[in-house]
Amino acid sequence: MRHFAGGEVAHEVLQRLLEAAHAAPSVGLSQPWRFLRITDQGLRTAIHAQVQNEVQRTAVALDTRQDAFLKLKVEGVLDCAELLVACVHDAGPETEIFGRRTMPAQMSIASVACAIQNLWLAARAEGLGLGWVSMFEPAALAALLRLPADTSPIAVLCLGPVHAFYPLPMLQQERWREPRPLSELVQER
Amino acid sequence: MRHFAGGEVAHEVLQRLLEAAHAAPSVGLSQPWRFLRITDQGLRTAIHAQVQNEVQRTAVALDTRQDAFLKLKVEGVLDCAELLVACVHDAGPETEIFGRRTMPAQMSIASVACAIQNLWLAARAEGLGLGWVSMFEPAALAALLRLPADTSPIAVLCLGPVHAFYPLPMLQQERWREPRPLSELVQER
Repeated sequence: MRHFAGGEVAHEVLQRLLEAAHAAPSVGLSQPWRFLRITDQGLRTAIHAQVQNEVQRTAVALDTRQDAFLKLKVEGVLDCAELLVACVHDAGPETEIFGRRTMPAQMSIASVACAIQNLWLAARAEGLGLGWVSMFEPAALAALLRLPADTSPIAVLCLGPVHAFYPLPMLQQERWREPRPLSELVQER
Repeated sequence: MRHFAGGEVAHEVLQRLLEAAHAAPSVGLSQPWRFLRITDQGLRTAIHAQVQNEVQRTAVALDTRQDAFLKLKVEGVLDCAELLVACVHDAGPETEIFGRRTMPAQMSIASVACAIQNLWLAARAEGLGLGWVSMFEPAALAALLRLPADTSPIAVLCLGPVHAFYPLPMLQQERWREPRPLSELVQER
């Protein structure tokens, strides 16, 4: 996660980013993405508390690497200029949205991820940093946001001006994990 | 799905596309994407048969829109220049890959979808068409490809030169489904 530099994201820039997301492909043109822009400061604080709760649980689960983990910058919920929550809308089985009969949940999540990746690339092109926080309990966050039963949060997106971009993926730079070369992940059949 | 124009994808172009995919963000730098390049013609034919089987099941499920569905170009497995299968590798619960404790399968799928969306945008920048086919039974395709138990196919990717790009999303142009405006999918909280 980048270190956010405060400031703000101009309305028209945010609109362009959301339009980039909305231009993503989706299974059966289902457009299952739902975006919440969090402007209520109390709500932002409550989201931060949920994330920090999961950060602590993650630290415990990491056991011997707990101390190293807690030194990483893994979320910017309070310090980013714009906080978005991206959700997956489940069209349910009774629909004419085809292409998700055998993998319904997977394909809806994949579609939303394509939208988020578009938004991410567009943000970078605008000189803005983005971090995808997945450390939360989806049911608890859905309750906090009063989401309908068919809508689940998949990402807390921290967006805004940053002091600098990392020259390498942060977890590589901080020597948490070495990335694998592409050649190991491609095979021919 | 685009109408593919035969031809081929130069090796260095394919390599650039895979590098774009491999540059995607991933949960905990887990890089859960695995790509198979299908070069065996018999295997391509067998994949096509699995896809066509699911196309038929989808048509039956669509009931009154069956005929209209069967007129759509929903796959290009036999006619695309390059056929790739993108898979999700499940790191399992016992790992130091953080950020997927509460949504393990979802976050791995989301990471692979980000990689595919990168590959898609890079393909378009190279003037190549790409179609994501999700109409297959993942267990049957995994068996055909002899994938290890921790690896599941999420996408059959049809890639190559096309006669033309659609001016609108194909399902919109063919009046299968109207896209919704962005404004309906964004809320403030």
